[in-house]
Amino acid sequence: MPDLPFLPFCTLLGSLGLGCVAFVSAWCQYWRGGFAWDGSARMFNWHPLLMVTGMVVLYGAAALVYRLPAAWRGPKLPWKMLHGMLALTAFILAVLGLVAVFSFHNASGTPNMYSLHSWLGLATVLLFSCQWVAGFGAFLLPYAPVWLRALYKPVHVFFGSTILMLSMASCVSGINEKLFFSLKNGTATVPYKLLPPEAVFANVLGLLIILFGVLVLCALAKPSWKRPEADSLDTHQPLLGAEH
Amino acid sequence: MPDLPFLPFCTLLGSLGLGCVAFVSAWCQYWRGGFAWDGSARMFNWHPLLMVTGMVVLYGAAALVYRLPAAWRGPKLPWKMLHGMLALTAFILAVLGLVAVFSFHNASGTPNMYSLHSWLGLATVLLFSCQWVAGFGAFLLPYAPVWLRALYKPVHVFFGSTILMLSMASCVSGINEKLFFSLKNGTATVPYKLLPPEAVFANVLGLLIILFGVLVLCALAKPSWKRPEADSLDTHQPLLGAEH
Repeated sequence: MPDLPFLPFCTLLGSLGLGCVAFVSAWCQYWRGGFAWDGSARMFNWHPLLMVTGMVVLYGAAALVYRLPAAWRGPKLPWKMLHGMLALTAFILAVLGLVAVFSFHNASGTPNMYSLHSWLGLATVLLFSCQWVAGFGAFLLPYAPVWLRALYKPVHVFFGSTILMLSMASCVSGINEKLFFSLKNGTATVPYKLLPPEAVFANVLGLLIILFGVLVLCALAKPSWKRPEADSLDTHQPLLGAEH
Repeated sequence: MPDLPFLPFCTLLGSLGLGCVAFVSAWCQYWRGGFAWDGSARMFNWHPLLMVTGMVVLYGAAALVYRLPAAWRGPKLPWKMLHGMLALTAFILAVLGLVAVFSFHNASGTPNMYSLHSWLGLATVLLFSCQWVAGFGAFLLPYAPVWLRALYKPVHVFFGSTILMLSMASCVSGINEKLFFSLKNGTATVPYKLLPPEAVFANVLGLLIILFGVLVLCALAKPSWKRPEADSLDTHQPLLGAEH
């Protein structure tokens, strides 16, 4: 691909990520009644906000840590810790996002875990938890031998992109589902099929999430933006020691 | 990633792809009234069948052509043509799949292109048409200079994976939407939220599509399965001559 500089691309990504968070907040605040933590529909609204912020935007930021030119020089350990911390924050937001939707369902007597969106979304979060634990165990704890780390690294990298892709599919199906629920024929002032402003706004949010995710995957795929491993003296230095 | 042999993996992928086509056919035939080309709901049923067969299964097969060990030896041109023909067939099925849903909507007075699923799905098919035309122009016609082909190739490869990923997100959101329509509270014998057998079956179809797509992306990402370019004598040989 053409050799663009990483930092302007990163600024574009940052703006797009903030745009996604702003769009999902505005949708829930302006059209869906705002936020509360009380089991009501306003508690549900935390679900899209926390999922988009955690599983897409923060997750994307975590994935790109090693592409920052500053991460190419000097010890790798602080960047590993930043990567792990951002991913952990993304995971905590995702868990809170799940608590929000389960609490809303339980309070309103709606069954949990029946739609394809919920199956895929939960599978994505579970996969992310495995990815985090395996990454922490292999790359930050001092117990994994070098050969196991080398074997696991491309698997971790592949699942890194895969989980982001599954998050995007979960977000799109979730936004689509929520719009059919909220803008139902017969009960909504203007139903989804007549494209009221809310529908256009939330559809655009869905496309923004896709654009952000595709650009993150593009940055991850670009060979010249990858951290040159040979430069690093402590590629294999774990958090609690340097046994290997 | 561990160095698995490609052909057994390919057999697994082939079975999974056939499984996706069988599942979507069985869903439409057994629970949704079968197939017809008459503007009715039975015409709509061609939409999921043609989209899954074209944009996921055939598209995945087209993407993997160069990973076949047979494609590594001898002239590249026949494999380029197979890649282009499979992609063209996938595209034709996708267009027919769009005709099926537009005709059904028009016959039943339902507006077109309002849901996020429809926006993302149409964007994916449009992107695929650009990818096909650009790929044909750059790699099969004799006019593109070598430097342009070399510049465009990684872009073509990146969008190859991206379009498959967007197809998967479109399929998941489409299946989810269709189940909410067909198994509506109040009109369906057992609504979606109580997980009747149809819902479980179609949710599993959604997960099978995701599994198939992720395994195709995994095969595409594996460095040892990539065609070694240096082996080929006619990497740059286009369809209508060998000017470059």
